[in-house]
Amino acid sequence: AARLRVRDALVAQEPAGEVKVQGWVRSVRRQKEVLFLHINDGSSLENLQVVADPSLENRDLTFGSAVEVQGKLVKSPHRMQNMELKAETIHVVGPCDTLSFPLKVKERHPLEYVRQFPHLRCRTNTLSSLLRIRSEATAAIHSFFQDNGYVHIHTPIITSNDCEGAGELFQIETSNEAKESEEKTHFFNVPAFLTVSGQLHLEVMAGAFTHVFTFGPTFRAEDSQSRRHLAEFYMVEAELSFTESLQDVMQVMEDLLKTTTNRVLSKCPRDVELFHKYIAPAQKVINVAGKELQSFYSFWGLLISYNEAVEILKQAPQTFTFKPEWGCDLQREHEKYLVKHCGEVPVFVLNYPYDLKPFYMRDNEDGPQHTVAAVDLLVPGIGELCGGSLREERLPLLQSRLQRLGLTDAYQWYLDLRKFGSVPHGGFGMGFERYLQYILGVDNIKDVIPFPRFSHSCLL
Amino acid sequence: AARLRVRDALVAQEPAGEVKVQGWVRSVRRQKEVLFLHINDGSSLENLQVVADPSLENRDLTFGSAVEVQGKLVKSPHRMQNMELKAETIHVVGPCDTLSFPLKVKERHPLEYVRQFPHLRCRTNTLSSLLRIRSEATAAIHSFFQDNGYVHIHTPIITSNDCEGAGELFQIETSNEAKESEEKTHFFNVPAFLTVSGQLHLEVMAGAFTHVFTFGPTFRAEDSQSRRHLAEFYMVEAELSFTESLQDVMQVMEDLLKTTTNRVLSKCPRDVELFHKYIAPAQKVINVAGKELQSFYSFWGLLISYNEAVEILKQAPQTFTFKPEWGCDLQREHEKYLVKHCGEVPVFVLNYPYDLKPFYMRDNEDGPQHTVAAVDLLVPGIGELCGGSLREERLPLLQSRLQRLGLTDAYQWYLDLRKFGSVPHGGFGMGFERYLQYILGVDNIKDVIPFPRFSHSCLL
Repeated sequence: AARLRVRDALVAQEPAGEVKVQGWVRSVRRQKEVLFLHINDGSSLENLQVVADPSLENRDLTFGSAVEVQGKLVKSPHRMQNMELKAETIHVVGPCDTLSFPLKVKERHPLEYVRQFPHLRCRTNTLSSLLRIRSEATAAIHSFFQDNGYVHIHTPIITSNDCEGAGELFQIETSNEAKESEEKTHFFNVPAFLTVSGQLHLEVMAGAFTHVFTFGPTFRAEDSQSRRHLAEFYMVEAELSFTESLQDVMQVMEDLLKTTTNRVLSKCPRDVELFHKYIAPAQKVINVAGKELQSFYSFWGLLISYNEAVEILKQAPQTFTFKPEWGCDLQREHEKYLVKHCGEVPVFVLNYPYDLKPFYMRDNEDGPQHTVAAVDLLVPGIGELCGGSLREERLPLLQSRLQRLGLTDAYQWYLDLRKFGSVPHGGFGMGFERYLQYILGVDNIKDVIPFPRFSHSCLL
Repeated sequence: AARLRVRDALVAQEPAGEVKVQGWVRSVRRQKEVLFLHINDGSSLENLQVVADPSLENRDLTFGSAVEVQGKLVKSPHRMQNMELKAETIHVVGPCDTLSFPLKVKERHPLEYVRQFPHLRCRTNTLSSLLRIRSEATAAIHSFFQDNGYVHIHTPIITSNDCEGAGELFQIETSNEAKESEEKTHFFNVPAFLTVSGQLHLEVMAGAFTHVFTFGPTFRAEDSQSRRHLAEFYMVEAELSFTESLQDVMQVMEDLLKTTTNRVLSKCPRDVELFHKYIAPAQKVINVAGKELQSFYSFWGLLISYNEAVEILKQAPQTFTFKPEWGCDLQREHEKYLVKHCGEVPVFVLNYPYDLKPFYMRDNEDGPQHTVAAVDLLVPGIGELCGGSLREERLPLLQSRLQRLGLTDAYQWYLDLRKFGSVPHGGFGMGFERYLQYILGVDNIKDVIPFPRFSHSCLL
């Protein structure tokens, strides 16, 4: 008998004899004359209905057990499904100890509950839908960049570059070093850290390729258990050479988001629907039907400067915990207000204060409110989703800034990039988990990554 | 003027007026009547020839400088190229200090030389070809699994699981912990390490999805500066549920290698050719024309057992540093001999000694030479490229093995997977850098990764 995936069985156009379906039992319903099973194999949210003679019943045939069913695929008489499997044999491949199994049949367990079982939660509808969506979004991001001529770069995870993120870095040692604490000799000769961003390494590559991207794990040792923080998360980062303005960078952000979201919506409509129905029903989210998507995206291009943002905040009828003032960073409460003020749509905020931003951002040489060419994309429900900038490609400006920061020696290699065929360039990073939270309306970031790592928690 | 990439300009079918090409100068040739430039923008190995009036000459127009050239794309009179750009304006965007630039015009620098300049070596032909190939292979691997219904899983980089790799692990601490050495409280409450493999986490997912894969960084704190070792490298790993035999796992290895290699050969023929011409000319490598590929792959399926392998080695007319003996691991010298003995083709070696392999491998319950269902794929020039196995899905056998190893407590969660709908499953891992070395004939693993990390070295 030919193996058939549940997803393929469900959409089959023709009946088929002698097929074999393998998966896990999601429900067993016994009637006098007939036994109904629902089988799931992870290929889709929907289960395949199996119809069997009660003589095929077996005490191991329970919720959670693994089965192999052979039989005929036939048109289903039920309105809600296209095909069903008429079983000839049912083999329980692996039974399930239902008493100790923490997941219960037909229960919609809260996300907080299943988070306790990182090795089993992928067997719930919500997490399996999430993982299919995450996989599809990953593929879509790779395709988007590939189709647009970007070269993919594996930027390093371990780096000797500790200047950017300051106190929130993870440091690496061999197990031996960690034990013998005194007078350390480092494995790499120098202190080594987990990367906080691949940007500087992408900039290296932007000196040889006009379009590069990376998509990998990044790390922050932030001591927070909030629903917004992970110690290990994924970032998509792109870098473009020969940019003319920040507009070039914003265009790629927008194209990336549209293309990826369209693909996820069209490839995983039922999985996305589950989130919009049960997880974030009240929240305004992207409409699966695609109609609203158009109007949703018609808001794109809403663009305010940091200066304007501060004015909007100052005139707000509400009071903020952090008083809005030119020169201060936008807090989560500020971002939220700005998005609301603009009508709950994505908002680009441009040109941030020079003193607020890292050394590599391009000086706008304006004044008296001195800014750099930076842009953040704020979205409803999330706040900052993407952050980008033009980079300072002019050797003298970069040199004097690094000198003032006392970083000249550490960044000789970075200065080199400006000595040998320097070009205007810029790029951005997008938090992949935040993106998933955004399109699905998931409140807690721990629920959009397979194995969350955060302060005080590293399960499995 | 419309921007045009070099790659697109080179294959244009029609002349085009008013185009703009941006990139870096690879050569400048001055003749009395005409000025020739070669421009590269990273989109292809080949340069675009620019033909200009000598009046457009400029002292900043040197090797390594960044330029923007506007003009007309016309048919080239030269046999070796299709199109060339007739320049109307040449703008030097960023000059290059050629005296201090470590790369010299038209020189084929040795790989060891350019390795000293991790921030500049991507500007050489060899490394830029390598990075295009690496990018294409990455995309091909994602597509292969996606097209075959696999769900992509981001297995964690940080893990509390320290049992498998023993002494060769990197441990993680926050910068603060690393400084205050006494009486540590760990960021994650438990000691945390960099992953050596995503397999166990993929097995979690194989309990909900029948086909899963991961493709990410893995780490070894091996104190070796050899041409075969990196501290940070990439692995492709796949896990299949409802396997019937090792054959299922081997089939995926073979399909993955064929599909990926075919795509790389067809998408990057000139880049691959560079390696076969200049880097590994003597070595027998895959023929770009694709003809030899067929015959190359007809050797597939060469299959010997570990028992047979040991017999072959014992009968070898040569002496080995490590005497071949049943129960001992195959050394590099043994692998090399086996591949040679089989005719310099890929060789699968099956069923390794039980006591040699980790606890999760499936017991063949044979004897007296007790083995597990493991398989390694050995390839010419490299040795082990892939390693896989069936996993022990039977609770009692796994339980007793973990107990004997004193690992029962640490692996309760892993045992759980066998209590709730356990299925026969198996999978494999492939070293991505080794794969690139294999198809390109690159001797040193440091030359197939953008930023190599190894003992005593973590540049940038």
